[in-house]
Amino acid sequence: MSAFTEFDLMRDLQQGGNKIVLLVMDGLGGLPMQPGGKSELETAKTPNLDKMAAEGMSGLSVPIRLGIEPGSGPAHMSLFGYDPIRYEIGRGVLEALGIGFRMTSNDLAARGNFATANKDGYITDRRAGRIPTDECIRLCKKLQDATGDMFPDHQVFVEPVKEHRFVFVLRGQGLGGSLTETDPLETGKKPLPVTDESGSEEGKHSADLLNQWIEKAREVLADEERANCLNLRGIAKDPGLPLLTEIYGLKAAVIAAYPMYKGVASLVGMDVVDFEGDRPSHEIDALERVWNDYDFFFIHVKKTDSYGEDGNFDAKVHEIEVVDELIPRILALNPGVVIVTGDHSTPAKMRSHSWHPVPTLFWSPLARPDAVTEFGETAAGQGSMGVFHATNLMPQAMSHAGRLKRFGA
Amino acid sequence: MSAFTEFDLMRDLQQGGNKIVLLVMDGLGGLPMQPGGKSELETAKTPNLDKMAAEGMSGLSVPIRLGIEPGSGPAHMSLFGYDPIRYEIGRGVLEALGIGFRMTSNDLAARGNFATANKDGYITDRRAGRIPTDECIRLCKKLQDATGDMFPDHQVFVEPVKEHRFVFVLRGQGLGGSLTETDPLETGKKPLPVTDESGSEEGKHSADLLNQWIEKAREVLADEERANCLNLRGIAKDPGLPLLTEIYGLKAAVIAAYPMYKGVASLVGMDVVDFEGDRPSHEIDALERVWNDYDFFFIHVKKTDSYGEDGNFDAKVHEIEVVDELIPRILALNPGVVIVTGDHSTPAKMRSHSWHPVPTLFWSPLARPDAVTEFGETAAGQGSMGVFHATNLMPQAMSHAGRLKRFGA
Repeated sequence: MSAFTEFDLMRDLQQGGNKIVLLVMDGLGGLPMQPGGKSELETAKTPNLDKMAAEGMSGLSVPIRLGIEPGSGPAHMSLFGYDPIRYEIGRGVLEALGIGFRMTSNDLAARGNFATANKDGYITDRRAGRIPTDECIRLCKKLQDATGDMFPDHQVFVEPVKEHRFVFVLRGQGLGGSLTETDPLETGKKPLPVTDESGSEEGKHSADLLNQWIEKAREVLADEERANCLNLRGIAKDPGLPLLTEIYGLKAAVIAAYPMYKGVASLVGMDVVDFEGDRPSHEIDALERVWNDYDFFFIHVKKTDSYGEDGNFDAKVHEIEVVDELIPRILALNPGVVIVTGDHSTPAKMRSHSWHPVPTLFWSPLARPDAVTEFGETAAGQGSMGVFHATNLMPQAMSHAGRLKRFGA
Repeated sequence: MSAFTEFDLMRDLQQGGNKIVLLVMDGLGGLPMQPGGKSELETAKTPNLDKMAAEGMSGLSVPIRLGIEPGSGPAHMSLFGYDPIRYEIGRGVLEALGIGFRMTSNDLAARGNFATANKDGYITDRRAGRIPTDECIRLCKKLQDATGDMFPDHQVFVEPVKEHRFVFVLRGQGLGGSLTETDPLETGKKPLPVTDESGSEEGKHSADLLNQWIEKAREVLADEERANCLNLRGIAKDPGLPLLTEIYGLKAAVIAAYPMYKGVASLVGMDVVDFEGDRPSHEIDALERVWNDYDFFFIHVKKTDSYGEDGNFDAKVHEIEVVDELIPRILALNPGVVIVTGDHSTPAKMRSHSWHPVPTLFWSPLARPDAVTEFGETAAGQGSMGVFHATNLMPQAMSHAGRLKRFGA
């Protein structure tokens, strides 16, 4: 028995082939608002997606594990073929990606929170009274100016996020380790020092630099009324993932309007396609423009999730219909495989991400059609793909695109 | 990368939420008696369960592995979320639990068999001619009186089971190890000594004590006509499982009429609810009484299995109908999740446990309904849960009860 992995299988068997489109409507899965009713997707008029479902196969995709409500980062990792339990991405990295910060493999990123402390250093408000974002911007600039160049061999970046939240990035050689957070998680306590739990040289060095920066930053903030203190959480490096481009031998591109999704996709080696506008139609414009340059296209539609989070059932239905109308333009490009799915469910009824498996449609001229003839949760539950882990999609996309050689003789 | 387990995931994500009911009809799954016929569950009139199936999701649950006929102990462990291949419970422990013996973590338990040996000690009948249970009771009392206090630091318990079978328990500090059985498994051989295969101090000590007890016991039995010898098998400790209460953060109770099921449930930390009577209606009386005291309720209905083992198709059908009539009383308590399933199948046609996956109904106000509108084997095979391992139920119960936080950002 060997430590042969699914990724090794892909590396061994990959070959050239047809193009693959992964169209993700964020938070696609839903629920009926009333017992006996229909979900958002089932309510939407989707003649084009229904036709694809009839020609292809359907199923319900599990992003993390059955019953687990996914965050957006791990849910996308799973669609890209990475088991998110095994390939964890630090919160700091996700926060940096979320504001469009382009991380490198030499970066250590953290989520920062401004806080209020009393004169003895005890925290009285862990969120500094949720200062306005304008003030966050001013404070980040103040810190950037005062500490950006404080280390001879490392660069510091302090970038505002929202209210009391900011991103801290330390860039340079020899960073790493398993670093603890400074937030004591309750008021009436002092911030904790960063410590390293890996026992490595890199970890010790990184903890030293972070503690030096924190001390200096608190001096800089000392005269602030509310944000006179700060904490760092989720301190982590780019996890240095094996790249999708290498595992599957695909030249891959991300077409997304929001920074977070460009960020996650670039973590696994996808090129970011720049384009004007933020509507699905602008994304399909971009797809048509770069069609000849790539083998794999990850297209991300955001608003289905946003409307779900808002509890706006009708707007989510409408956004799905908008995407449906664009489907003929994708098929006209003659792809080998089109997968239409979500990263997770965001039922308007719950106004939140949820654990419900995600309706998924797998279309290809070589797909074996099942009995499903429409795209929807109940229909997908009857599909021949069954309930499956999202990481199963990439190998099937590869085979249906003619991109995998035979295993064994 | 870490050795992060499913249980760690539950520990990390657990939070407070709604109540969960796990209603197990033992041996629920069945088979048609004739080709083209219906199973016991499909024959039963179950308007309440059918309504729940229409509102919730259905599937077929695999207790151990596909094709494996489960014993009751491992089948229940699987429903509680423990993969029974990984979390094995010694047969001695199960036998002790089966007669209602309350084990402690200092107990070493074994299945005992009375046997017949000739004057040179060679076994001539491994079951002592299947002596009547009355004689078993007399012999156990004789052994208890003669050996109960033979060790200064350890207690001995000898409890009758049935015919030639008894339970042996040794209680005290420092017991353990990996202990071999004494039964040579064929006649014409002498009993084997107990040996320890763990190489530990505890193992060596335990083997010594057990061999001393066996020698003394055989002296006590020397004048018996048939049961003049004995063997110990499946010698094991309470496995010291991680507790369901801790893994999921649930205050949990078992409502069952039979000792074995109370025993297995208490092994994973459930409180045993005492009540008068042994019918399903008495169990629901108890449920109503303790409803406010717990988060999780495991209700066990025994007779569905017993009638299956008897080959009594009609009586099994009737018992399922009895349970169906009680369903409105459960739903009136306003649970967050109700799971109705079996631990395994016991088709009347086979008069035995079987490996057939178990029809399972998952009801919750937050469940996404599938196309299934009745509770039965064929219908469940069309459900959106598909064919799934029984250990998948607990995480889904947790999420639908609002008891899991989001994974990742």
